[in-house]
Amino acid sequence: MKVGYLGPNGSFTHNVAVKAFPSADRVPFGNITEVIKSYEEGVVDYAIIPVENSIEGSVHETLDYLFHQAKIEAVAEMIQPIKQQLLATSQDKAIEKIFSHPQAIAQGKKYIKSHYPNAQIEMTASTAYAARFIAENPDEPYAAIAPAAAAKEYGLVIIAKDIQEMDENYTRFWLLGRQKPVFDLPKSQQKLSLAITLQDNLPGALYKALSVFAWRGINLTKIESRPLKTALGEYFFIVDVDNSNEALVACALEELQLLGIDYKTLGNYDVYKL
Amino acid sequence: MKVGYLGPNGSFTHNVAVKAFPSADRVPFGNITEVIKSYEEGVVDYAIIPVENSIEGSVHETLDYLFHQAKIEAVAEMIQPIKQQLLATSQDKAIEKIFSHPQAIAQGKKYIKSHYPNAQIEMTASTAYAARFIAENPDEPYAAIAPAAAAKEYGLVIIAKDIQEMDENYTRFWLLGRQKPVFDLPKSQQKLSLAITLQDNLPGALYKALSVFAWRGINLTKIESRPLKTALGEYFFIVDVDNSNEALVACALEELQLLGIDYKTLGNYDVYKL
Repeated sequence: MKVGYLGPNGSFTHNVAVKAFPSADRVPFGNITEVIKSYEEGVVDYAIIPVENSIEGSVHETLDYLFHQAKIEAVAEMIQPIKQQLLATSQDKAIEKIFSHPQAIAQGKKYIKSHYPNAQIEMTASTAYAARFIAENPDEPYAAIAPAAAAKEYGLVIIAKDIQEMDENYTRFWLLGRQKPVFDLPKSQQKLSLAITLQDNLPGALYKALSVFAWRGINLTKIESRPLKTALGEYFFIVDVDNSNEALVACALEELQLLGIDYKTLGNYDVYKL
Repeated sequence: MKVGYLGPNGSFTHNVAVKAFPSADRVPFGNITEVIKSYEEGVVDYAIIPVENSIEGSVHETLDYLFHQAKIEAVAEMIQPIKQQLLATSQDKAIEKIFSHPQAIAQGKKYIKSHYPNAQIEMTASTAYAARFIAENPDEPYAAIAPAAAAKEYGLVIIAKDIQEMDENYTRFWLLGRQKPVFDLPKSQQKLSLAITLQDNLPGALYKALSVFAWRGINLTKIESRPLKTALGEYFFIVDVDNSNEALVACALEELQLLGIDYKTLGNYDVYKL
């Protein structure tokens, strides 16, 4: 079995792939669109992509592709806590420059300021790239902020552990596939993700759509408007629905259809905590 | 008068600052939090920061800071179309490597593939950084994807114009300040941005909050849930309200308060198109 994921190795998505599919043939791809396409074209049996970070918000490359272009559904969600490590090629390294993704740098700022006040900061496109880059330049006074998995992947050592400021930092990952997998992981929730397109921009159209869930007492765990890209001011809505009462949610979806409200199912999945 | 903005020079925010305040003393800052802090501490009289891109979505560093930490309001919104240019140090440059922010690279992918199929792609933290970097390395076979303003800023030439794939790409910028400025720019809308905190996560609580606007026929142009960062699954909601009928919206806000629903005003502003 082949599982595609957002690389490079040492990325948070890679870590999810290893934990969910320890014995599968895992294939890294360079960006989210390539991961999804590889699944669409049958190159891989499953695909793992990030969908939302608690600090950065939704990953629009994922949601927009699934809404606009794909006939694909998420069959599982994995939630991973995001912890950042300070990595270098050796424990006693003198550090003059620290590389990482802007978000990881923001998260580790307090630590860096108190421990390496004179270090220069360099932004990279991802934390895993930063780790790979300093591993390729072992003679330089470099460090990187990256996940623990990146240390293992690129032969680096963790010189400071869990340097992120905020503890409430986690990322939701979706598994795209044809059927729900069986994981040996703790299951926490059952959810349905919908993309709702409203016929017009009339006031109250969204309210009407939400009423279908509200009067049935069905909880929504997320709602977000996204531009439709047809004209400025036209939106679709991403809604995450608590699907623990599947029969009740099915009734709500039927009512949505009767009201003439278009929706697309982005995923119907169990949520696993890593 | 001093105006802080998200730098470096040549960035899209810089361009907004120049157009809105052609004769002010403009001061660049390294990240969004620093821009907002400079305004909070009275270092600048106005601050300009990005708040949402039509493709990437909300800028959570902006919205979260304004919700959690600041007593600041947006007093104007500027909408700028995002157009990407291919820049180099000279017109007839041989190009082997192209630098830019991942989003700009995604936008210019089609053009790059057909015109520079063999070029290596390197990710940078921002488009303006990419432009500055290739300007600092004039002897290398480098190009950058960046806004036209970056060409002017770093003495580069545009070797291909408007290479972005999608025309519907624009960014909303907020102006933080004490009073509404008078701009010589076309005004398009009048809006109010609220952050609504719901007492509990009971189904229908959001529905109740929205009903206040819906039954009055007040249009919402955006709605987005954001984690509260207190516990997983607790949210606040960003709602953009059409404020063309100010008296009617004031009644809606009063009803919100009577219902015991907490909200914070993030901005009360006119929208200008650049």
